[in-house]
Amino acid sequence: MIVVMQTGSTQEQIESVLERLAEYDLRGHMVYGAERTVIGVVGAAIPPTLKEELEHFTGVKETLRITQPYKLVSRELRPMDTIVDVRGVKVGGERCVVIAGPCSVESEEQIMATARAVREAGASMLRGGAFKPRSSPYTFRGLGEQGLKLLAQARDETGLPIVTEVMTINDVDLVARYADVLQIGARNMQNYQLLEEVGRTGMPVLLKRGLSATIEEWLLSAEYVTAQGNPNVILCERGIRTFETATRNTMDLNAVALAKRRTHLPVIADPSHGTGKWYLVPPLALASIAAGADGIIIEAHPDPDRARSDGGQSLSLENFAKLMPQVAAVAAALGKHV
Amino acid sequence: MIVVMQTGSTQEQIESVLERLAEYDLRGHMVYGAERTVIGVVGAAIPPTLKEELEHFTGVKETLRITQPYKLVSRELRPMDTIVDVRGVKVGGERCVVIAGPCSVESEEQIMATARAVREAGASMLRGGAFKPRSSPYTFRGLGEQGLKLLAQARDETGLPIVTEVMTINDVDLVARYADVLQIGARNMQNYQLLEEVGRTGMPVLLKRGLSATIEEWLLSAEYVTAQGNPNVILCERGIRTFETATRNTMDLNAVALAKRRTHLPVIADPSHGTGKWYLVPPLALASIAAGADGIIIEAHPDPDRARSDGGQSLSLENFAKLMPQVAAVAAALGKHV
Amino acid sequence: MIVVMQTGSTQEQIESVLERLAEYDLRGHMVYGAERTVIGVVGAAIPPTLKEELEHFTGVKETLRITQPYKLVSRELRPMDTIVDVRGVKVGGERCVVIAGPCSVESEEQIMATARAVREAGASMLRGGAFKPRSSPYTFRGLGEQGLKLLAQARDETGLPIVTEVMTINDVDLVARYADVLQIGARNMQNYQLLEEVGRTGMPVLLKRGLSATIEEWLLSAEYVTAQGNPNVILCERGIRTFETATRNTMDLNAVALAKRRTHLPVIADPSHGTGKWYLVPPLALASIAAGADGIIIEAHPDPDRARSDGGQSLSLENFAKLMPQVAAVAAALGKHV
Amino acid sequence: MIVVMQTGSTQEQIESVLERLAEYDLRGHMVYGAERTVIGVVGAAIPPTLKEELEHFTGVKETLRITQPYKLVSRELRPMDTIVDVRGVKVGGERCVVIAGPCSVESEEQIMATARAVREAGASMLRGGAFKPRSSPYTFRGLGEQGLKLLAQARDETGLPIVTEVMTINDVDLVARYADVLQIGARNMQNYQLLEEVGRTGMPVLLKRGLSATIEEWLLSAEYVTAQGNPNVILCERGIRTFETATRNTMDLNAVALAKRRTHLPVIADPSHGTGKWYLVPPLALASIAAGADGIIIEAHPDPDRARSDGGQSLSLENFAKLMPQVAAVAAALGKHV
Repeated sequence: MIVVMQTGSTQEQIESVLERLAEYDLRGHMVYGAERTVIGVVGAAIPPTLKEELEHFTGVKETLRITQPYKLVSRELRPMDTIVDVRGVKVGGERCVVIAGPCSVESEEQIMATARAVREAGASMLRGGAFKPRSSPYTFRGLGEQGLKLLAQARDETGLPIVTEVMTINDVDLVARYADVLQIGARNMQNYQLLEEVGRTGMPVLLKRGLSATIEEWLLSAEYVTAQGNPNVILCERGIRTFETATRNTMDLNAVALAKRRTHLPVIADPSHGTGKWYLVPPLALASIAAGADGIIIEAHPDPDRARSDGGQSLSLENFAKLMPQVAAVAAALGKHV
Repeated sequence: MIVVMQTGSTQEQIESVLERLAEYDLRGHMVYGAERTVIGVVGAAIPPTLKEELEHFTGVKETLRITQPYKLVSRELRPMDTIVDVRGVKVGGERCVVIAGPCSVESEEQIMATARAVREAGASMLRGGAFKPRSSPYTFRGLGEQGLKLLAQARDETGLPIVTEVMTINDVDLVARYADVLQIGARNMQNYQLLEEVGRTGMPVLLKRGLSATIEEWLLSAEYVTAQGNPNVILCERGIRTFETATRNTMDLNAVALAKRRTHLPVIADPSHGTGKWYLVPPLALASIAAGADGIIIEAHPDPDRARSDGGQSLSLENFAKLMPQVAAVAAALGKHV
Repeated sequence: MIVVMQTGSTQEQIESVLERLAEYDLRGHMVYGAERTVIGVVGAAIPPTLKEELEHFTGVKETLRITQPYKLVSRELRPMDTIVDVRGVKVGGERCVVIAGPCSVESEEQIMATARAVREAGASMLRGGAFKPRSSPYTFRGLGEQGLKLLAQARDETGLPIVTEVMTINDVDLVARYADVLQIGARNMQNYQLLEEVGRTGMPVLLKRGLSATIEEWLLSAEYVTAQGNPNVILCERGIRTFETATRNTMDLNAVALAKRRTHLPVIADPSHGTGKWYLVPPLALASIAAGADGIIIEAHPDPDRARSDGGQSLSLENFAKLMPQVAAVAAALGKHV
Repeated sequence: MIVVMQTGSTQEQIESVLERLAEYDLRGHMVYGAERTVIGVVGAAIPPTLKEELEHFTGVKETLRITQPYKLVSRELRPMDTIVDVRGVKVGGERCVVIAGPCSVESEEQIMATARAVREAGASMLRGGAFKPRSSPYTFRGLGEQGLKLLAQARDETGLPIVTEVMTINDVDLVARYADVLQIGARNMQNYQLLEEVGRTGMPVLLKRGLSATIEEWLLSAEYVTAQGNPNVILCERGIRTFETATRNTMDLNAVALAKRRTHLPVIADPSHGTGKWYLVPPLALASIAAGADGIIIEAHPDPDRARSDGGQSLSLENFAKLMPQVAAVAAALGKHV
């Protein structure tokens, strides 16, 4: 439910609404707009009589039911786009952000060479995995804290903010010390304790869609983060699992366009995981932007054939540089800029 | 297998290769290039010794194995793009073709109004169903021949070539008398007799991908048409069936990009069926073009709310007109034109 | 809609209902029960006022809306099981029918050896393909009429009724001259002209579920057959297409149990196509029966390693013979018999 | 790789193999058979020369490569069935175990009534959720430790061992204090830290298959647990996500049969989540056993219509009692007992 306050309603009137909510074990989530204040009501059980009850409160203009199971992330609650600020890089709005970097941080040489090259080509953030989720317990799982330090070093030199994955609640503090954006991987999209923990940091969170998560489930997972008072969620479509085997996943650009309509959060796309083949990354990167994505996240590596993970879907630095002018051209065709 | 003839090889030398193929119950499919002639070898069982055998023939430069199960539609056989000519409208190449029209032809007024409006907005062909496949035997199945006549009338007035579906071998002659492009629907993608029958007409064929067909199966179905000596196949991605229920289908733009790489045939996309929601059609239309599609096919209707089928996914004529400049802008960003 | 006549209603009263239906371009489908007669109303558009209108007719007990889009195949219309009689073999009811034979008829020796062995082991019908749908135009497509003749010869010797596929409307007459059950393959589940054509023969039809058909679409395809006045439809679950690649398809036994609940038609299962691996056929055959299937259809071959199609999923005749006592034991545990 | 020692090999000879493995950063996992000892070699990188190297060691009979990416759970390493002992209830082998209970523990009255009734009917373990994963942050998430205490109380009275879910590494110690089997839910199948943490407890672990996990990924997740030295893993198929919407999930009994072939671990099935409809639970429970499952886990509730979660898929206690004799009959048909 949404409580829309009248223009010029007082803090006291708002408090009075919040107190009544508290009596029902509900919480009010404040959205301060230019003209008026809106209160999103969240909690396990909203009494059916509450709507009418609150409409009689002084200062309340109207109350509206939200028809979606998610509340705080819904466009019904907040029609204007949320813009997530990552050390000055704004995600959402007119800008089309490009995040690039290797699947895994492998060495100082590798991450520094990549960071310099992608910044040169026009990327605005650096990605790289220090903790890697792997299907098999016997494969390379990343450099851990050493990888985080190398990422921080790359940021210091290039100025690019860092996006890196956190896999478990025990690592949230550690990763948060180095990263600018905490990435939640597809396998963890419904790891609710982890979602709440990154929610509590207040830091920007990049939430990948699960392999077989519906759009509704994806938005509900974002709701877990925002329900902790952290509105800085960036959604990321990265391909879903279907019957098709010629590509690693099936990029679902319907989901990008639909999510942009249903939520005010920024939505980006990952054509590297979405296709699994480096030569499909450029066309799908452009398609993502044309579908309305607020940005793309791309795997790039100085020597993809020798990458320790995901080499087959990584662009070489040369191919990444060739892609960027095309990205800029398609963004411009939509009235956006990189 | 492909037999590459030497530059300047004689007709007699070619015949001699074809005769040897015939002895093995194989056929040779001729591809005449600017510099040299290539023979595609097709048939149920190619003897393992044939490759070496033919390399000793006079006039043969080399022989190559094709690694894909499809032969004639493969880029390995024919690296250059096939361009399908539909009454002067060229599908494939630098042009991005836009086909628009209602799901079903419903009345003279409806089809004429639509044809005029979409031509005005810049469409280059008219779509419309006279024979409609329907899950239930109790729903509207189209106007039949009367619908075909109305389509022909619309073409006479507007000059737009006509794309319409043929559902059964018994109707191929009838539909071919009126249509410029014979459409094979998703449900019929593996109706092999129908594929062969439309193959025999030599007319342009628009082959929709089946709901759960792999890219390989789709190309093999195109092979059924081309194996009848008809190279005029336009592939059409129209969304696949996945677990996601928020959209009618999942538009698979990976498939567009991959098909463009694997086959020389033109590939277009249908965001109306691919999304099932009119408000997702514009972003996915643009995304299709950015992914490299040679065109789009879009459902448009003068009054979508009263359409006898697929109203929810049809653009109004106003919304179609608004989309066209965006289509042109994205096409231009890729160096193409509408 | 269903019109339930009163016990003892006259033929004249029934005619009077049918006449009114005809005025609205509707048809009445008669279901004669032990106690009373029921009329299923089918047609494109049932006027909203018809229900009340018919309730005033003399002899009418009540009228009920059918909530499913399928009518004639619905258990709401006919609560008791339909039993399809195939030359004396009853499909549906207490018996658990076993249909066995090769994927393709390959030679007299092969089909006769198989027919004798499966009859010996306890099978009650013989399957075998004379016309084979194949993804590629370059692979073996069956022996055609010669295959049908060999099947008929096997029936003459063993007494086993014949199940074989018909792929196109042009072949219905030919196949109907030899076969006892006309099989509609998965790829043709929504080939509506073919469904209507086999409907018109009045012969038993085995309708396979499409690779990605929902249960509702499957029942609607059965409705296409029954709407032609042919109630002799046997449904067959044969595995659906999912993300899993370790098996050829995913056997959906939920669908068997749910279809048994929603329709009065018999439902059998095909674990050969449902798994694609011969060693998974026995456990899934038993599981199908335990899930409530009215029978199973199994590929068996004298020499699976040399089969011209589907060898990897065919049981050897020895393994088929070993399976039969287990089938009988599970059927007995459910109060049925083979 | 597997190192097979000779009959009568000495502890010293074994140590010498293990030392060499350690030099390569590999570990040896011991499997002591009746006649001889086998060493499973696990680690990130097995040098290609190791196989030959070890074959020259005294006491080594032969070395074999394992072709699957999972090692410890593979039948190639250990051909005989693993039997997991849960307080005397043996899972795997000739017994077909039935685990029953409510989705969530809701109250003392509810869990005690259920525990008594399912034991009475013949169940051998009690299930019940104290920590519930929920898509929405605003729904009931279980009673927490209070729920665990009620489960322990039910065990004390009925003697039934307890199966309950643990969702996060922080709760493993707490849940392990009360539970007999730690359940890992479908959403956490690839929560690798959690898998390792439950692995370290040494306790029986019930590992549900992820909604869209391949069979290989499922076995690799089991490998994460066993790689911690904990062989007590029970696999549980609970339905996969497909295009079908008439059922909540699609029960994949192919996976049960294939997993039984590929791994020595016991495999059970969950027809409650696998179907999502209480009336489909009995047929699919029987089908699971017929497919070779070592048991079933079923949701049962004293008053399904008032359950706080999953009521629609819960059997009433009466229906559960009716199902048990059928389960026993099908198990008997396969030579097993409940």
